Amino acid sequence: MGGLDHRIAVPVPPPQPFFKTMKSTMKETFFPDDPLRQFKNQTLCRKVALGFQYFFPILEWAPRYTLDYFKSDLIAGITIATLAIPQGISYAKLTNLPPIVGLYSSFVPPLIYAMMGSSRDLAVGTVAVASLLMASTLGDEVSAAQQPTLYLHLAFTATFFAGVFQAALGLLRLGFIIDFLSHATIEGFMAGAATVVSLQQLKGIMGIDHFTNKTDIVSVMRSIFTQTHEWEWRTGVMGCCFLIFLILTKRISKIRPKLFWISAMAPLTLVVIGSLAVYLSHAERHGVQVVGHLKKGLNPPSLTDLEFGSQYLTTAIKTGIITGVIGLAEGIAVGRSFAMFKNYNIDGNKEMVAFGTMNIVGSFTSCYLTTGPFSRSAVNYNAGCKTAVSNIVMAIVVMFTLLFLTPLFRYTPLVVLSSIIISAMLNLIDYNVAIHLWKVDKFDFVVCMSAFLGVVFASVEIGLVIAVALSLLRVLLYISRPRTLVMGNVPGSKMYKSMDHYTVASTVPGILILQIGSPIYFTNAGYLRERISRWIDEEEDKLKSSEESSLQYVILEMGAVGSIDTSGLNMLEEVKKNIERRGLKMVVANPGSELMKKLEKSKLMEEIGQDWIHPTVEKAVEACNFILHTYAQT
Amino acid sequence: MGGLDHRIAVPVPPPQPFFKTMKSTMKETFFPDDPLRQFKNQTLCRKVALGFQYFFPILEWAPRYTLDYFKSDLIAGITIATLAIPQGISYAKLTNLPPIVGLYSSFVPPLIYAMMGSSRDLAVGTVAVASLLMASTLGDEVSAAQQPTLYLHLAFTATFFAGVFQAALGLLRLGFIIDFLSHATIEGFMAGAATVVSLQQLKGIMGIDHFTNKTDIVSVMRSIFTQTHEWEWRTGVMGCCFLIFLILTKRISKIRPKLFWISAMAPLTLVVIGSLAVYLSHAERHGVQVVGHLKKGLNPPSLTDLEFGSQYLTTAIKTGIITGVIGLAEGIAVGRSFAMFKNYNIDGNKEMVAFGTMNIVGSFTSCYLTTGPFSRSAVNYNAGCKTAVSNIVMAIVVMFTLLFLTPLFRYTPLVVLSSIIISAMLNLIDYNVAIHLWKVDKFDFVVCMSAFLGVVFASVEIGLVIAVALSLLRVLLYISRPRTLVMGNVPGSKMYKSMDHYTVASTVPGILILQIGSPIYFTNAGYLRERISRWIDEEEDKLKSSEESSLQYVILEMGAVGSIDTSGLNMLEEVKKNIERRGLKMVVANPGSELMKKLEKSKLMEEIGQDWIHPTVEKAVEACNFILHTYAQT
Repeated sequence: MGGLDHRIAVPVPPPQPFFKTMKSTMKETFFPDDPLRQFKNQTLCRKVALGFQYFFPILEWAPRYTLDYFKSDLIAGITIATLAIPQGISYAKLTNLPPIVGLYSSFVPPLIYAMMGSSRDLAVGTVAVASLLMASTLGDEVSAAQQPTLYLHLAFTATFFAGVFQAALGLLRLGFIIDFLSHATIEGFMAGAATVVSLQQLKGIMGIDHFTNKTDIVSVMRSIFTQTHEWEWRTGVMGCCFLIFLILTKRISKIRPKLFWISAMAPLTLVVIGSLAVYLSHAERHGVQVVGHLKKGLNPPSLTDLEFGSQYLTTAIKTGIITGVIGLAEGIAVGRSFAMFKNYNIDGNKEMVAFGTMNIVGSFTSCYLTTGPFSRSAVNYNAGCKTAVSNIVMAIVVMFTLLFLTPLFRYTPLVVLSSIIISAMLNLIDYNVAIHLWKVDKFDFVVCMSAFLGVVFASVEIGLVIAVALSLLRVLLYISRPRTLVMGNVPGSKMYKSMDHYTVASTVPGILILQIGSPIYFTNAGYLRERISRWIDEEEDKLKSSEESSLQYVILEMGAVGSIDTSGLNMLEEVKKNIERRGLKMVVANPGSELMKKLEKSKLMEEIGQDWIHPTVEKAVEACNFILHTYAQT
Repeated sequence: MGGLDHRIAVPVPPPQPFFKTMKSTMKETFFPDDPLRQFKNQTLCRKVALGFQYFFPILEWAPRYTLDYFKSDLIAGITIATLAIPQGISYAKLTNLPPIVGLYSSFVPPLIYAMMGSSRDLAVGTVAVASLLMASTLGDEVSAAQQPTLYLHLAFTATFFAGVFQAALGLLRLGFIIDFLSHATIEGFMAGAATVVSLQQLKGIMGIDHFTNKTDIVSVMRSIFTQTHEWEWRTGVMGCCFLIFLILTKRISKIRPKLFWISAMAPLTLVVIGSLAVYLSHAERHGVQVVGHLKKGLNPPSLTDLEFGSQYLTTAIKTGIITGVIGLAEGIAVGRSFAMFKNYNIDGNKEMVAFGTMNIVGSFTSCYLTTGPFSRSAVNYNAGCKTAVSNIVMAIVVMFTLLFLTPLFRYTPLVVLSSIIISAMLNLIDYNVAIHLWKVDKFDFVVCMSAFLGVVFASVEIGLVIAVALSLLRVLLYISRPRTLVMGNVPGSKMYKSMDHYTVASTVPGILILQIGSPIYFTNAGYLRERISRWIDEEEDKLKSSEESSLQYVILEMGAVGSIDTSGLNMLEEVKKNIERRGLKMVVANPGSELMKKLEKSKLMEEIGQDWIHPTVEKAVEACNFILHTYAQT
């Protein structure tokens, strides 16, 4: 190698103490965003203040709060309150809980979130999907109609566990677990859940009494069409009119965003109109179902209602975890997207703690699961909210409603609530997303559609499990079938690139350059061994038929091999033997520090020889060519 | 960019028809070794012949078989037969099956394997670990002592399903499933199983009648030390002597490999000595347990004994799958390592079909699960076997034994069998492996030890589940926490390398170069977004304190981003917005074809701008510097 005097050797990183490596791995795994950075080099007193500010962001922004902000927040808060009241009642009905619980849930949780949350645009409240999930999971064990008190208490208990689970995820820095719900999974799941929720509303719109407990489309359709005698034409007509009204107002607000208040006020307007109509016509005596009596007063405490000793405890825990995850996934996705619009950052783990605390406190004050629903947050955003104060305003409005206005909902027809739910759900079904996924990534499309179809045709849980399993399968499949590519020289440059990608690239005579496309692990070591051997076979066959100069070197480009385990090291050794058995020489190019460390420790470095390890493909080819030409001359 | 006239653009690959992509993905997933390559451009007649040869490799090598080969195979075959007979009886006892079944299992399966297997060194027979697993899984449901016939039939049924499962894996090209058992997992599992098997033998050596059914060390130790009154000093002394004898002979063969026959003959010698001693001293009347009467004759058919209609069918299927996987893992690992020594290739999927057929046929002829045990194959190899004919020779010797010699085993004491098993197991416990793993890869060490401890302290299944779960967790953790590295210029070259690795590298003023260390997926998109943002924060902090020129460009090196999903694309968009919000510019370097395709399809390419995508970091830095300097001059 005397001719290559400007050779730069690939350094072998010095061995690191075990605990140092361990510490840095732990930090990357659990504290990737380094939340403690701001605490560095501060006095103890300041550290405590920063710690409080960390968990209660209100302490950070409240001192800077201005009257202008308050004006904006006041308008936004009142707007979302007019939406929160009918939605709260509707979703509580969907969960088979007393309607008043929906109002309770729009009073305490928003106050907690305003103190602890880091999003400025999120409007807190109950959500349809989690409500439906709670109804179906709890409903499997306890009938809401036959044991309403037990069912209510179990709902509080599930909310408590959802809160504990959410807060624990945040505190244990395990927020990445919700990353396992991919974008495509969530889209498909939400659209499926929205379809299912809308289908359930046909009960209210058709005025059917005996409705199936199942959520799948087949059972629902059978339930509707086998009971045509129960259909109530009055509610049907009302429902259709209301729905068209809601959709029209939404359309208007969409075309002219300044008129956001039209769509925001529409539900409450409908409630008022519907209630008045029923009150005046006494339609409740002619088969039109109404909400009925609501108790006046603020949230009663419910700490003693939690059923820790019940035989249904495991059901409550299971329900809590499922709804908690779904709640988190929606809330954090919503918070993150509005933060993107307004260019600020939100901290996922901190949000989880906020959501968790809000649900734990909620479960003590007769609330059920709350999170940040997309529809309400979008109205909040469009109404020009500046900070979480809009949530406080909403809570105060709801408080007044609870104290003084509940009797007004007595005559509200259920069909109004059903049409409010359906119109909110229609936003979640967006076929453009599916088209986009199909165009960009076929597998993501499959994941999305299987989540959707799973939810619609089987059940909410099954759809979710299928989609998560498919997503993980894809990752594992990728890991077990990484790409290997043949590289060639791009003419007129010293670049070596994949020949599939840069079609102008050409091979170097006598040298086969293979790029290994992923870390080498036990899951792919066997495949890579076979595949490398096949590449060499194919190359040799090609050269044989074209009668070019025969193969002499196999260069393995290791740029993407960020790590390797012992199975991978064994594989490399086997590949080396295999290559040598054919009379060729194995050369390693562009190894990373992790690979170098492992090669050194496993003594494989000595077998390969440091001279055959090069920092780039270019250097490796130069070295090989140098030897080839020296041989040719002698 | 006018100044960079020799700029090479990164090509966007032309869109491929969906089915073409699909086909090539399927091929890489299921046919990575391209087994159909040899069938190309052949006549139909030749194709059929090749097809037969594919499934029956004997057709391929038999015509080239010579007398010299036969001489070697004859010696090897007789040697392994002397080992197979005592081992067969021992392992059948370990499985709680009649000892004769162990002999049957060394007659039919080796004949099948000789025709279908592609390894030249594998010696077929029963293995201790699978035997123990079968005993513990079946024993949980049916007592071998109380219902011996049902137990025996279930063992055949389990063997049948193991065979079906193995053959199906091979035929469906799903061989990669056993890749999910990593090297470290198998090592830990085998050592744990060997410990457990040895502990079980204390029953035989101590002559204890009432022994626990459990396999964990705590139960076994309690069972032994609470029943000291059952200890039999005669068998204890015999056991220790035998064990020392076996270990000594093994030592001799290890030091002088030519004397392989000493350790190979030792077990049979012990059987003869032990049987003679018992026969002459009538020790069987004084508490020394013996094998007892064995029926003369070849394997009876057992097709009608398979319990397809039994209530224990699911147990049989479960046992079949577990033992089938373990059998495959051992057999294929053994076949592969000897193939490495002798420089030939074995085809994993073809081996699976061979193992599967062997077990299916075995289950019809009163055999239980067989595979390629390491100890017997090593003896075969050392004895100089050339082809699978050594298996045929072994089968013939066993056949003669079955026809004429079975009465000779009547007086064989069980303690001999126990010491044979223990001495075989001691080979599998190799603490050097654990030390090596600790040195090279701490996580693999943890996986190995947890498999070992799980098997020893809990149960064989639990140990296996823990180890596989840990291995997968590691892969998922790697996928969700990929490395991002800051790159710098290596002085005196145009190379850009990780500054952690190449400590001489230095940053380029005004430019931050980040290397993304893995494909971008939903599991890591969130993490990467946070991490990139943190790198920029840290770099800006550093520059602020050192008062150097401020940051202008962030170059993302995408060499390792072999693929990306829609969550990843969303993340890139967010990162781009985030970078621009700080007044910086995002530049992409070295993107692969998959990434380019996705960028184009998702319209993200337009947002980034083709001018800001460069084939290498070097070109990207050149382009950035060019603009920086042009600005500086104006």
